Amino acid sequence: MLNVGSNHGKARAFATGIDRVLATPMEAGRARFDFTSDNTAGFCPEALKAIEAANRESVASYGEDDFTRRLCDRVREVFETDCEVFLVFNGTAANSLALAQLCQPYHGIVCHRHAHIQTDECGAPEFFTGGAKLILAEGQNGRIDPDEFQAIIARFRDLHSHKPRVLSLTQATEYGTVYQPDQISALADVAHHSDMLVYLDGARFANAAATLGKSPSDLTWRLGIDAMSFGGIKNGGGNAELVIFCGKELAREFEYRLKQAGQLSSKMRFLAATWLALLDDDLWLRNARHANACADALSQELRRITNATAVFPVEANEVFVSLSAGVYDRITRAGWRFYNFFEPGVYRLMCSWASSQELIKDFARDVEASIQASIQS
Amino acid sequence: MLNVGSNHGKARAFATGIDRVLATPMEAGRARFDFTSDNTAGFCPEALKAIEAANRESVASYGEDDFTRRLCDRVREVFETDCEVFLVFNGTAANSLALAQLCQPYHGIVCHRHAHIQTDECGAPEFFTGGAKLILAEGQNGRIDPDEFQAIIARFRDLHSHKPRVLSLTQATEYGTVYQPDQISALADVAHHSDMLVYLDGARFANAAATLGKSPSDLTWRLGIDAMSFGGIKNGGGNAELVIFCGKELAREFEYRLKQAGQLSSKMRFLAATWLALLDDDLWLRNARHANACADALSQELRRITNATAVFPVEANEVFVSLSAGVYDRITRAGWRFYNFFEPGVYRLMCSWASSQELIKDFARDVEASIQASIQS
Amino acid sequence: MLNVGSNHGKARAFATGIDRVLATPMEAGRARFDFTSDNTAGFCPEALKAIEAANRESVASYGEDDFTRRLCDRVREVFETDCEVFLVFNGTAANSLALAQLCQPYHGIVCHRHAHIQTDECGAPEFFTGGAKLILAEGQNGRIDPDEFQAIIARFRDLHSHKPRVLSLTQATEYGTVYQPDQISALADVAHHSDMLVYLDGARFANAAATLGKSPSDLTWRLGIDAMSFGGIKNGGGNAELVIFCGKELAREFEYRLKQAGQLSSKMRFLAATWLALLDDDLWLRNARHANACADALSQELRRITNATAVFPVEANEVFVSLSAGVYDRITRAGWRFYNFFEPGVYRLMCSWASSQELIKDFARDVEASIQASIQS
Amino acid sequence: MLNVGSNHGKARAFATGIDRVLATPMEAGRARFDFTSDNTAGFCPEALKAIEAANRESVASYGEDDFTRRLCDRVREVFETDCEVFLVFNGTAANSLALAQLCQPYHGIVCHRHAHIQTDECGAPEFFTGGAKLILAEGQNGRIDPDEFQAIIARFRDLHSHKPRVLSLTQATEYGTVYQPDQISALADVAHHSDMLVYLDGARFANAAATLGKSPSDLTWRLGIDAMSFGGIKNGGGNAELVIFCGKELAREFEYRLKQAGQLSSKMRFLAATWLALLDDDLWLRNARHANACADALSQELRRITNATAVFPVEANEVFVSLSAGVYDRITRAGWRFYNFFEPGVYRLMCSWASSQELIKDFARDVEASIQASIQS
Repeated sequence: MLNVGSNHGKARAFATGIDRVLATPMEAGRARFDFTSDNTAGFCPEALKAIEAANRESVASYGEDDFTRRLCDRVREVFETDCEVFLVFNGTAANSLALAQLCQPYHGIVCHRHAHIQTDECGAPEFFTGGAKLILAEGQNGRIDPDEFQAIIARFRDLHSHKPRVLSLTQATEYGTVYQPDQISALADVAHHSDMLVYLDGARFANAAATLGKSPSDLTWRLGIDAMSFGGIKNGGGNAELVIFCGKELAREFEYRLKQAGQLSSKMRFLAATWLALLDDDLWLRNARHANACADALSQELRRITNATAVFPVEANEVFVSLSAGVYDRITRAGWRFYNFFEPGVYRLMCSWASSQELIKDFARDVEASIQASIQS
Repeated sequence: MLNVGSNHGKARAFATGIDRVLATPMEAGRARFDFTSDNTAGFCPEALKAIEAANRESVASYGEDDFTRRLCDRVREVFETDCEVFLVFNGTAANSLALAQLCQPYHGIVCHRHAHIQTDECGAPEFFTGGAKLILAEGQNGRIDPDEFQAIIARFRDLHSHKPRVLSLTQATEYGTVYQPDQISALADVAHHSDMLVYLDGARFANAAATLGKSPSDLTWRLGIDAMSFGGIKNGGGNAELVIFCGKELAREFEYRLKQAGQLSSKMRFLAATWLALLDDDLWLRNARHANACADALSQELRRITNATAVFPVEANEVFVSLSAGVYDRITRAGWRFYNFFEPGVYRLMCSWASSQELIKDFARDVEASIQASIQS
Repeated sequence: MLNVGSNHGKARAFATGIDRVLATPMEAGRARFDFTSDNTAGFCPEALKAIEAANRESVASYGEDDFTRRLCDRVREVFETDCEVFLVFNGTAANSLALAQLCQPYHGIVCHRHAHIQTDECGAPEFFTGGAKLILAEGQNGRIDPDEFQAIIARFRDLHSHKPRVLSLTQATEYGTVYQPDQISALADVAHHSDMLVYLDGARFANAAATLGKSPSDLTWRLGIDAMSFGGIKNGGGNAELVIFCGKELAREFEYRLKQAGQLSSKMRFLAATWLALLDDDLWLRNARHANACADALSQELRRITNATAVFPVEANEVFVSLSAGVYDRITRAGWRFYNFFEPGVYRLMCSWASSQELIKDFARDVEASIQASIQS
Repeated sequence: MLNVGSNHGKARAFATGIDRVLATPMEAGRARFDFTSDNTAGFCPEALKAIEAANRESVASYGEDDFTRRLCDRVREVFETDCEVFLVFNGTAANSLALAQLCQPYHGIVCHRHAHIQTDECGAPEFFTGGAKLILAEGQNGRIDPDEFQAIIARFRDLHSHKPRVLSLTQATEYGTVYQPDQISALADVAHHSDMLVYLDGARFANAAATLGKSPSDLTWRLGIDAMSFGGIKNGGGNAELVIFCGKELAREFEYRLKQAGQLSSKMRFLAATWLALLDDDLWLRNARHANACADALSQELRRITNATAVFPVEANEVFVSLSAGVYDRITRAGWRFYNFFEPGVYRLMCSWASSQELIKDFARDVEASIQASIQS
């Protein structure tokens, strides 16, 4: 007899991110993931169209196609430098493989205590580097404090500990804030002075660029960034991130590393196609501006309702708010799903290319109703 | 000043598989990749439609969506067992992560000398297992010879060598042949008797199933297969492979391994959606039968023209033929690209869901012309 | 022409532990390492004699000799259980390979913020496990606080982070304190309740056992320890540490892991011989009691001189003291070398089997003189 | 109740090398390991004396001692170059860590099909490199054939396979033969021409140098060797091998790699002391000449008895002979233990610094008697 369905429990464990949301049981048909993350949306229309358009005839596989070739050239134009460009399937792979390229197993990677590579990649950097250590720096609003960074460099100086080799910055940060260009160049100077390299986790680089209003080159290699990821998936591209090495020597044999890591797509044209769409007429920036603007609007709505400002400055597409347990409980019963990031009661709301004023109004209305109900009970 | 385009040379190195084809320079606009590989085609129409249909509203990420849940159940129905099912981005990841799950770094994996994991994954199995060794077995037509396998087990018996732990079979093989069910069960019995597990590289499992005309269960776990990949990308699904563990204990914590390996898609719904399309009304089998039939037709056309049979029995979607250097040179000048697999002069031609009688006729005509021209010159 | 000596600078970097000591340049012929560490002493006389005695005729290599066989049996007697016993070259290897045996790359190892595996093994645990993470717990006097441990378990519960799998305790701790048996069993209960294993870093297990006055079994597996290292090198044995698995299944194929890790000695008899000497007539305990008594005497001498108690309770063979920069400077000019462990001004002094009342008097006299001179200047 | 001794079975598995010898059960008290391997002997007298002499007072640990410093300088004198020198615990560690230093995980290491790194290190090279592949070359008498090497380089040229990066030569080879200097330089030229490095597994470099009668420099870096191990353990030193990098840049941060790999001895002085003894007055060469001379004498004795020449030229300290099963059986019953290396009936006999004419006579007598008895039965 056929026995099906037994790993639904497993499936729940599988996507445990969601478990964090579900303080109350999810009621059928009502869950709304619009503000849970910027990866709950799908492809933006242009990206999907690009996939359809690329789906013609047979083309060379593994990146030897014209789409990939055009994309690499296009990225070099956008970044105004002769960089090396690679496509991978997701952000964890982008970060981990770039770091593996820059590190030996006995090296240390300095990052913020709440960096994505530390908290949300299940040890992918440690795995792909073969044992490198994340050395955690403090700093307000998700940005590494320069004094902290100096202190770490001073502390790790003998062979009984990992040797610091890479400074990893996240732009925009995990808290939806951004580094100002001079903050990055100051940190990069310290790093380079200590024979370290600077990596940028740019999963939301588009959102930072939209906020800062500067060209990609003025936000990266001109500040001392040596290598970076550039996030397309959350931006609406949906199926690929870029890894960019600003110096050619740093990219040496990286294509072998990708292949060995299971990150060389045989049908690369579809990854390149969505990225070509994003780079066409600055769609990546337009998508990011839209998401940022939605976060700003959401933040203002919530301030109006709760009379409280966001926990962190809203400088990209994320809003962190404080809510009482009772209010949160009511909002989730209304179907909305979002993460509790800090105890007690700090929650994250994210906007994306797919957010809309209508969604924000819907959500705000339910928050307002939850607060009212909470007060009355 | 902007400097672009400098890594075109690199881009060529990037997709070096194609380099193997290009004995003569590629003339602009004429290259035809239809028979180069079964990964030069795109999404089959049903798969693309499924992506479009799945691209609605926000859904839970990282596999907690309904598409993924329905797919896992559907696979259990198709395989008639309570197996554990996972989605990964490509075949290299599927093979390597499954093997890493089954092996310690000091274990050995017995495979055919020409297995894909040995020849075409740039050491991904060695990397993901942290140092396991592929122990190479001989065998005609791409199938492991049982006596060879026995001899290997007898030879590796002390701790100065890797300890054999997994037997990896490829179905259909790299040569387009298939194992008969009793051949698999005989090998699996030997493996289990020696405390080894049996893995099936099923990148072209669909093609083998189409040839053998048996149910998935009768071709896998009922024969002693412990874990397997199931290829969707070349079959027309285009964006994901399955990893299936026939026993639950073997799958323990595999979701962590995937996440750490950069193989947990945030937008999993799109991977699940194409697979749901493949499993709907046996599309995977229909696509495979089509590809197999095209290979058969191609093989007969070539025999008619060259008066020579294929190098290996054509039991799936691949045809290996012998061509003189002069003929090969003329065919490539006509635009066709395909790999030289063995010296001297054995070439591989592959069919897929996208092959057609028209393409076969086109190709056959150019082969015939090349032979005529070659004789006259 | 011959060019020699150029990597003296390198040699200095090589043993950078010492660099931490040398705030002032070392004056030729005067450096005294007696209290720098318990690894600055050599073999104790009985261990050296055992090596000489074992150096007769040819014997089987790689551990198939009678010395190794007798040692394994002797350890089982001492621990009163049918444990599995292995010999490795040093403590870093013992810890890292045991942890690799207990962990997958996506697992987490909970340890104290100042555990040796965190601060002094240059990432060996991360390397040998292939990417596991050390999850740092707080706790006074070098002991993990049970509430901290509970909080960590509660925090790491989804697949976006490493999954906690091992609790690693150090006995005696890095601060020369010891866990009471009931403290260990309480922590072990929590660990086992959460499907975690308990590892004991016993580099100074002898010192703890000497202090606690209990049998090895009552300090380890009866409290819930699953695997441990047992330090012989600092105890006077000089050339090997033991790895002990309390359960046989946990030791499965560990000999392969050792061999692959370069830790299987071909001339194992000499490692076994020194350990047989240590276990003969409780020499390991007598050596440890001596070192502990010396630390106690040193601590009292320093209290007499400085009028200050040790920074941590002196429960094993380490004394941590506060000294002003001026005093430290003078003591090092008198030749003594020891580490500055915490800023500002906390230094570590270690005793061993080779310490003596005479050395303690010598040192105390120089400390006293340094303080006097410092006051007068 | 105390349960002891249960892992004797395990202990036998532990040293499974010996299992290969024991076609017949070992009779108590009679086993003789004199010709089993050159690691069945202990420390040579000078090395043991050096350990005793070094066992005075406390000295700096982890290689910051004078013994280590003097040794590094002495090696540079002996090799007449400003090389970088490191001490590790055994040959597996020396080979694997040096190769890890020279390779990325996606690189290939070309070695002879019967190289020690391929057959006897349980995958340590694969483990320490994180996934590099040994690419096997053929060649008579244990030496890599230059044409084979060229063919391998030609074959591995795209990113779907490991990229050849290191050529690993063994001198003396596993078969007791040696490469002539011009053979090495020819292979090294090919390697360097293909952007590869050349590593020398010098576990028995002393034996090769004794045979070839040239200086270490004329046998290594002057021929193009980039890095090497230099075996002291089998030579009589007993506790350490050297890793030597001929170029400084290649050695970059190698001390971190050692530390992370559990190969940095805290009591380094004892490893340096035995090596200082070996290098004193060319003891290493004298020990090697003695072992080689014994192998030559043994070979001649056996030829006299069996009327058959050795299977491979006897150019170092190994003799391979063909024996019938009946004769082998009788010799082992007389207590002698040695390995069956090839089927059917090729056995290896090894001489060392500890071999003697008396032992050779004893052995020859038992062989002769075994043959006589075999003929008569």
